[in-house]
This record gives sequence, C-alpha cells and structure tokens, in this order.
Amino acid sequence: MITIRDVARIAGVSVATVSRVLNNSALVSAETRESVMRAVSQTGYRPNANAQALATQVSDTIGVVVMDVSDPFFGALVKAVDVVAQQHNKYVLIGNSYHQEEKERHAIEVLIRQRCNALIVHAKALSDAELSEFLESIPGMVLINRIVPGYAHRCVGLDNVSGAVMATRMLLNQGHQRIGYLASSHSIEDNDQRREGWLRALTEQGITPPESWIGVGSPDMQGGEAAMVELLGRNLQLSAVFSYNDSMAAGALTALKDNGIVVPHHVSVIGFDDIPIARYTDPQLTTVRYPVVSMARLATELALQGAAGTLDSDATHCFMPTLVRRHSVAPKQIVGPITL
Amino acid sequence: MITIRDVARIAGVSVATVSRVLNNSALVSAETRESVMRAVSQTGYRPNANAQALATQVSDTIGVVVMDVSDPFFGALVKAVDVVAQQHNKYVLIGNSYHQEEKERHAIEVLIRQRCNALIVHAKALSDAELSEFLESIPGMVLINRIVPGYAHRCVGLDNVSGAVMATRMLLNQGHQRIGYLASSHSIEDNDQRREGWLRALTEQGITPPESWIGVGSPDMQGGEAAMVELLGRNLQLSAVFSYNDSMAAGALTALKDNGIVVPHHVSVIGFDDIPIARYTDPQLTTVRYPVVSMARLATELALQGAAGTLDSDATHCFMPTLVRRHSVAPKQIVGPITL
Repeated sequence: MITIRDVARIAGVSVATVSRVLNNSALVSAETRESVMRAVSQTGYRPNANAQALATQVSDTIGVVVMDVSDPFFGALVKAVDVVAQQHNKYVLIGNSYHQEEKERHAIEVLIRQRCNALIVHAKALSDAELSEFLESIPGMVLINRIVPGYAHRCVGLDNVSGAVMATRMLLNQGHQRIGYLASSHSIEDNDQRREGWLRALTEQGITPPESWIGVGSPDMQGGEAAMVELLGRNLQLSAVFSYNDSMAAGALTALKDNGIVVPHHVSVIGFDDIPIARYTDPQLTTVRYPVVSMARLATELALQGAAGTLDSDATHCFMPTLVRRHSVAPKQIVGPITL
Repeated sequence: MITIRDVARIAGVSVATVSRVLNNSALVSAETRESVMRAVSQTGYRPNANAQALATQVSDTIGVVVMDVSDPFFGALVKAVDVVAQQHNKYVLIGNSYHQEEKERHAIEVLIRQRCNALIVHAKALSDAELSEFLESIPGMVLINRIVPGYAHRCVGLDNVSGAVMATRMLLNQGHQRIGYLASSHSIEDNDQRREGWLRALTEQGITPPESWIGVGSPDMQGGEAAMVELLGRNLQLSAVFSYNDSMAAGALTALKDNGIVVPHHVSVIGFDDIPIARYTDPQLTTVRYPVVSMARLATELALQGAAGTLDSDATHCFMPTLVRRHSVAPKQIVGPITL
C-alpha cells in the first residue's frame, strides 16, 4: 500500500510537509503544495482518515445512535442527519441500540472512540445521570427526542403529551367515548407520555378508561396488528383507537379489515408520527405529525455547533406536534358500535 | 483528556505495554494486564479507535454503501449487515449514495480512508472498470446486487430477469394479456433486467407490448402512484400491472382505489422485493421475494473473510427470487377490463 513516505520521497519533501499540505495548513508555499499534490495523484495515495483524526483530534464522521435504522421513523431521522452532514462534508456513522441500555451505552462509546466530534443520540434506556456524564465530556453530543435536565440547550424534544391530547380530543369531538390505546411494548418514555395524554383527554371528559382498553404490541405493523386483535378479542365496544405510532396503526387497519370492520364507518383510528406510509394505507391515516426531519436537522446543526464551541446555552428546542386530517376518523355512528 | 500516557504512568509500565494489553496481545503477563486494566478503569481512559486502527491497520467498523437508508429495502439490508457486525463486535459505518456516480465513489473513498477492513457496497452508477479497481485494492470489499466480471466470488447477486419472468408468467397464467410495467426512473441495471424479464415473458406468448404500457416514476410509493396515474390516463385497457418494486406497487394500489378500480377484481397488481409493507397493503400484495436479509448476511460474512484473506475464490453467489402469493392477483374477468 502507498504510504505518506512514498509521497514525500517522490515530492522531495519531508513527511511533515506532506501532512501539512493534506491538512490544508497555511504554512506551505504554493510551489511545495503543487509538487506534493502531483505526487499524491501520481501514486494514488489515499490519506488515512484515522491518522488525520489522530493528528487533528477530530474525525470527519458524525455519529448517530438510533433504535433501529430499518424502522421508517428512524430511517427518516438518519437521512435528515445525512443531508446536513453532506452539506458539511461529513460522513455518518450509525449505531443501532434497539432500546437496550447496554447497546445504547456501547454505541455511544464506540462513536466516541472513533473521535466523532458531533453525535446525535436517540437514547431511551440510559438514565439521565449517565447521559449527563456523556454530555459533560462530549461538547458535540446532542440528544434527540429526550430532554435531560441541565442540558436543555443540547436536547431536541417533542411535546408527546400534547400530541396525544390533541389526537384523543379529536376523537372525543367526533362523539367517541370508548377510545382504546394501542401501546408500544418497549418500555420508553414516549409510550408513557402518549398514554398519559390519552388518559388526560379522556379524564377531562369524565371518562376513566380501564386497563383493558389498552392493547400492547411491538411498535411496528406486526405489533399493531397483534394489539388490535387483542382488543377485538376483549369485546369492549370501542368505537375508536389511538395508536402509539403509524406503523402500529397500519397493522391495526389490517386487523380490523380482516374482521370485517370498516374504518372509519365502524371504528375510527388515529396514528402518531406521519411517516410516509400514512398516506398509503386504506383509508389514508389521520395522524399526529412528528416533525422528525426538522428536529434531526436542528439536532445535527446543534451538534456541529457544540463541537465548534459556538452553542447558545440559553436556547431550548421543544417541538410541538400538529394534527394531519386524512380519512381514518369519522363521527361516531348513532347506531352505536356494531362490532368492537 | 486522559491519554494512554496517564494510564502507563499509573500502571508503572511503558505506553507500548498499555497498547499491547488494550490490543489483547499475548505477549503480556497476567499480572501486568491486571495492573493496566486497573489503571484504565481508575482513569476512565477510552482507547482512541483511530490510534488503534492506525497501529493495527484495521478498524472495528464495517462500511456499507446503500442508495438511501430511509428506503425500506435498504433499511433491511443495513440492519442485516448490522446483525452480523454485532456478532463480530464490529460497528457499521453507512454512506448513502443516492444512485449517483459521484456520491458512490465518494462514499467508498471515505470508508476506505476510515480503514474499514470490510466493505459491503451497493453501487449502481459506477462502471465495472472502476469497481474492479476498488475490489483489486480492497480485499474485504464485496458488492451486493451486482456481479462484476472477474470478481464473481466477491459479488452477491439476484437473478432479476428470472424474477420478472416469474411475475409476468403468473399474470399470463391467470389469463391476462395486456400487462403494464411500472418502471423506476433511476437508470439502474435492476430496472433494465426486470423490464427485460417482463418483455421476455410477454414475447414468449406472442405479445409485443408497446412503450406506452410502461409508466415511469421514482422507486417509492409516491413514484408508483404517479406512474399508475400516468398509465390510467392513457386508457390502455390493461388488466394487470407488474411493478418494479413493492413501494411503487403500494402507491399504484392507492391510485387505483382513488379511481374506483378494484384490485384484484378489475386489475391485478404484482410487486417485487417482499418488503414488510407488502403484507399490510389492501389487498395484501402478491410479489416476488428478494431475499435481501440472507444476501446481506452472506455479503457481510464474505467481506469479513476477504479482509482476513480466507475467501473461497471459486464460489459464486447468485440468489434466485421466489413468488409470494397474496391477494392482489386474480384471474382476468371474462367481462374484460372495465376501467383501465
């Protein structure tokens, strides 16, 4: 393999000079720069990113930790980071953490060891205390979808409770009272907050939903299908369902259809996130929009600013969800819930 | 920041000895190892991955280049690589290439500069000649979904033509004759091959489809919707459609529904890939299964073997697709195509 020594020999300069040219140092004459670059292209030498990172203590990679990149929500998040990264000529190093404490910690450690100078982390299993330690030692680390006290300026969050209140109130306004919740089986804050919003909106109207109105499944289409089947089996006479996310809602639509239940005529369904698939379900899904692209872009900019030491420590970044009205919610039929 | 020198000082050994311990060298006594590890945990020292990579000329990252990680097909590919990577205690560095020549080249170059010793590359825009050069200089590089002549043992491919022939023959066997093709607007080999298979199966039956039977769109739900609308507008009396991939087929289902056309009663639709969404469309999508998870796993194993110099140079790795029968294909109605 061609080394920096070969380049130096051919250019007739020292290794240190080649290094200065490749790192765009100002301390090099135009003539020297030209002869080095000629030797680089002649030999086909590729600078070693690890050596560069070691010399400058920064790498040209941005680290991202997400639950699972094959989940459409996290795919959109990573893509948004990538778009900003490309604008800054950086590359993206991704770690999947599967919402497991050990894997979240390991993914962050690995990215730090790679000397990523900017890190966007979606961590749900690690404690506030442990994340605070990481945030303290890595100025370019930013959290997405989580607020850690004392580091609000480096956290980009969403008001999950308000989103769930909006969704549930929309169903209440359409005359629904017996409204189920399709919950995620992952033990994460988002699920607790969305359930809390659902509960709050119902309680405001004097409705106290029993535990049996909650169906639980993995936060994907298969899990939504399973959770909906579970609710159907309990024969609860629900006329509407609020789902933890759109993937689960899409699975619920399939389960309802398989049982001859027409959405929204018999049962209304509302999701959360507004991933692309929500526009292609049948009927198209009414949902709560999670502005993940804007949030991921902001998080990436903040991480780069943090790495550069130019972060505004007074700013906070809590986004508000919005309702997206499509075709899976309708007024409750006067004849009453026929089927659920 | 704590350096290796601090660890060496506290452990009372040389920097080289600390390095040997951290790199699991056999040339260290158990006693020395213990005192070094005690100093590591006492100081909270994190080994610098770039320094380790430089010393050993390997990194603990596996590189992956895909078109777009937010596309469900590529999400599944990256996840499969990640599963194998975790088994080998490696991390995954991802570059998106968006099927653009310049970005494919750049993504590969960056991963090489990071000294990834294993690379799984989905490249469609670069020439065979340029990929051959990369393959020649990087023994741990493997291509997925492409066969480059001379490097078949480091390419994991799929017989796209046969898959498309199967899909089209299935429609022909159900009595369909006027069968459209929803093509990808990306100028890539897969699209050419799937169109070729469609054409071959039709030609076998004496049918010569005019260009107008092909609708073109981006290879996602939105593109499939647009391409289907385009075909509908041409009033071609098609009774079936073969789609470049499942995402486009899902978009086509929405376009058909919006126009009051019932699938499969009026029009049959068949996709390609068998991504998870295919089980949740209405009706569930009949499709051609692309075994992307098995292929990505194999590609990762091959890349690791290539990096270790243990690759079997006589093996070839061309997968065969299979049909998945669900509910979007039915026999052609005797009354003829009512609508398209």
